[in-house]
Amino acid sequence: MIEHTMRIKMMKRYLPVIVLLISLGAALGLAQTDQPVIKDDFQPSTLNQLGQEYPQVNSQGYARFRIVAPQAQSVSVNLGGRGGTPLKKSDDGVWTGTTAAPLDEGFHYYHLSVDGGTFNDPGTLNFYGSVRWESGIEIPAHDREFYALKDVPHGRVQQILFPSKSTRTSRRAFVYTPPDYDKKPAKRYPVLYLQHGWGEDETAWSNQGHANLIMDNLIAEGKTKPFLIVMTYGMTNDAKIGTIASFDIKPFETVLVDELIPYIDANFRTLSDQPHRAMAGLSMGGMETKTITFNHLNAFSHIGLLSGGTISSDDVKNTPDFAKKVKLVFVSYGSRELGGNRGGGRGGFGGDPKANAEALKQAGINSVFYVSPDTAHEFLSWRRSLHELAPLLFKN
Amino acid sequence: MIEHTMRIKMMKRYLPVIVLLISLGAALGLAQTDQPVIKDDFQPSTLNQLGQEYPQVNSQGYARFRIVAPQAQSVSVNLGGRGGTPLKKSDDGVWTGTTAAPLDEGFHYYHLSVDGGTFNDPGTLNFYGSVRWESGIEIPAHDREFYALKDVPHGRVQQILFPSKSTRTSRRAFVYTPPDYDKKPAKRYPVLYLQHGWGEDETAWSNQGHANLIMDNLIAEGKTKPFLIVMTYGMTNDAKIGTIASFDIKPFETVLVDELIPYIDANFRTLSDQPHRAMAGLSMGGMETKTITFNHLNAFSHIGLLSGGTISSDDVKNTPDFAKKVKLVFVSYGSRELGGNRGGGRGGFGGDPKANAEALKQAGINSVFYVSPDTAHEFLSWRRSLHELAPLLFKN
Repeated sequence: MIEHTMRIKMMKRYLPVIVLLISLGAALGLAQTDQPVIKDDFQPSTLNQLGQEYPQVNSQGYARFRIVAPQAQSVSVNLGGRGGTPLKKSDDGVWTGTTAAPLDEGFHYYHLSVDGGTFNDPGTLNFYGSVRWESGIEIPAHDREFYALKDVPHGRVQQILFPSKSTRTSRRAFVYTPPDYDKKPAKRYPVLYLQHGWGEDETAWSNQGHANLIMDNLIAEGKTKPFLIVMTYGMTNDAKIGTIASFDIKPFETVLVDELIPYIDANFRTLSDQPHRAMAGLSMGGMETKTITFNHLNAFSHIGLLSGGTISSDDVKNTPDFAKKVKLVFVSYGSRELGGNRGGGRGGFGGDPKANAEALKQAGINSVFYVSPDTAHEFLSWRRSLHELAPLLFKN
Repeated sequence: MIEHTMRIKMMKRYLPVIVLLISLGAALGLAQTDQPVIKDDFQPSTLNQLGQEYPQVNSQGYARFRIVAPQAQSVSVNLGGRGGTPLKKSDDGVWTGTTAAPLDEGFHYYHLSVDGGTFNDPGTLNFYGSVRWESGIEIPAHDREFYALKDVPHGRVQQILFPSKSTRTSRRAFVYTPPDYDKKPAKRYPVLYLQHGWGEDETAWSNQGHANLIMDNLIAEGKTKPFLIVMTYGMTNDAKIGTIASFDIKPFETVLVDELIPYIDANFRTLSDQPHRAMAGLSMGGMETKTITFNHLNAFSHIGLLSGGTISSDDVKNTPDFAKKVKLVFVSYGSRELGGNRGGGRGGFGGDPKANAEALKQAGINSVFYVSPDTAHEFLSWRRSLHELAPLLFKN
């Protein structure tokens, strides 16, 4: 991702509940304080390592951390670069603390600062983001059923190593194949190429995004056509960490278009024509999607930009045959990203995304704009976006 | 693994070289010291995260660590429970240190102790062992080519989620399919069920073991028949960490035999008869293999115990039709595990493994005993063991 933006609207969302609880507390004769009432219903985060009790999350979205470091001078939790949650040491050398405000629903990256060093929380699983394996915590979303592991037929996530002459190595990709892929040996499938954000890698859409479970559930409900999803690393800087400013898309464009796509079409039962190939990506992956699809409209018919720019009428005018070749333009954002110019939101990036989407629709293009409620530049926005996008793909 | 045993024979292995170097140093007029001569050819470990320079390894097998933690009071590296390598802080708040002795070739788990807390090294990748995601470091082995990523056709590692009624959930397994699996849609394949050790999980044989690359390379050289490898979690204590002493194999036996095997045979193109099904495992996985194969000789024909017990003549005598049904008994250990009673080695566990293997051979059973040179109860022993075992499977 370009940056971690965690727009925690402090107190705002839960204020009515909190006011009610404080009033109730006062009515019952409990001490009334300036502190928010934090419900004592903390449960281990669903992303914790086996047997680990911490971190924990309560029903309001507060997160509570517990770190053992008896001789440490300071321990704090850094959630998405928005300052820290300092932990306090008790007499037994254990550091604990709770976030000052509820977190947004969904997945959040974080790490610890221990005596000035950056470490992961040993209680939870790690997820690749910010060009490192970070700790992760999950605030249960009210709509989490759509990406839950359910008793439905499951597709597979297949790790492949494909030859890349341009980068002189074997590169890794993951391919989601739907539940019926190995049951119907004659059937061929459309393909979505799905990219992660800056600082993430080809593991992100499965680990953080649950793309496979989203598809399994949609397919079980008959809400989407089955298709393959191909996820690979969207940069070629294997030896060095690049910055977004110095990023050159050309080497990755070569890997994707000249090497990966032919490999997938040769080794999986794909429908390999333009009408059956889509590309989408989140954040930097959206920017990659726009560049690569615009350069190769003979290869892609469906385009998805998830918190990663927009497509304007000018873009379309300047691109021959766009309206004829493109069957879907899907653009989405988390609602907290759309702050306009004042809020520093991403809405201004490439023009107002909603207005752009409307203009495309007016121009006769199948244009869909989606806003994920109460989420920022984070993975719940993108899980929901995939959930909205998938049913729209390959309908023609 | 039952425990981390890192039998670092301090100085022993490199003593002649070191004596020679010190003598040379003296002859050249250099200061002679009691310290070993540590070559200044350190390189980043091959398991480091993208762009990370540390930890590093030199050509002698010394490991060097670098941790940023400016306000910490103490930082040490704990390599396999054999005491620690204390790091020293320089004026800029950076902690560095080098192991007191070379490490064995191959993969080692480790973690940091920072002011009394247990954390991972942010420089390197994590691997599941000791019931937690641990840091990993790789000392390049002289024979590392057999598990290297090469420009050969690559098989896939497929993540599946299979339904398990007995544990009321979908369980995860990884299935290695050889390079020609998707090229030859009519071909059917034998299957090896391959288990990890205690404290590890279904990711271990791919991540730490490179089982897929070992197979890709063997197949490319024509040294083994292509077959599938199925790797799943060998315990059912999903909610609680069990100890080896209280481990009850029965629930896992049900998952493997009654649920996973039928699922694999229904969803992959397997040869599903007894002659084409093998089971092997490392450490606890070897114990599981022995119990489960002995209970189900109608299901398995090839048995591999990797640092995980032996099979004796008495075992065979007490098991009806063993000699008729079992086509291979493969037992292996790392050489440093075979210390006999004196050295605390694992040789005594279930009887002397070499003598047992010989006795089976005398009794007309296809019995192979392999010792990995200069390795302990660690993954290089098991990579090599798989490399030896695979060509022996499904020959009849």
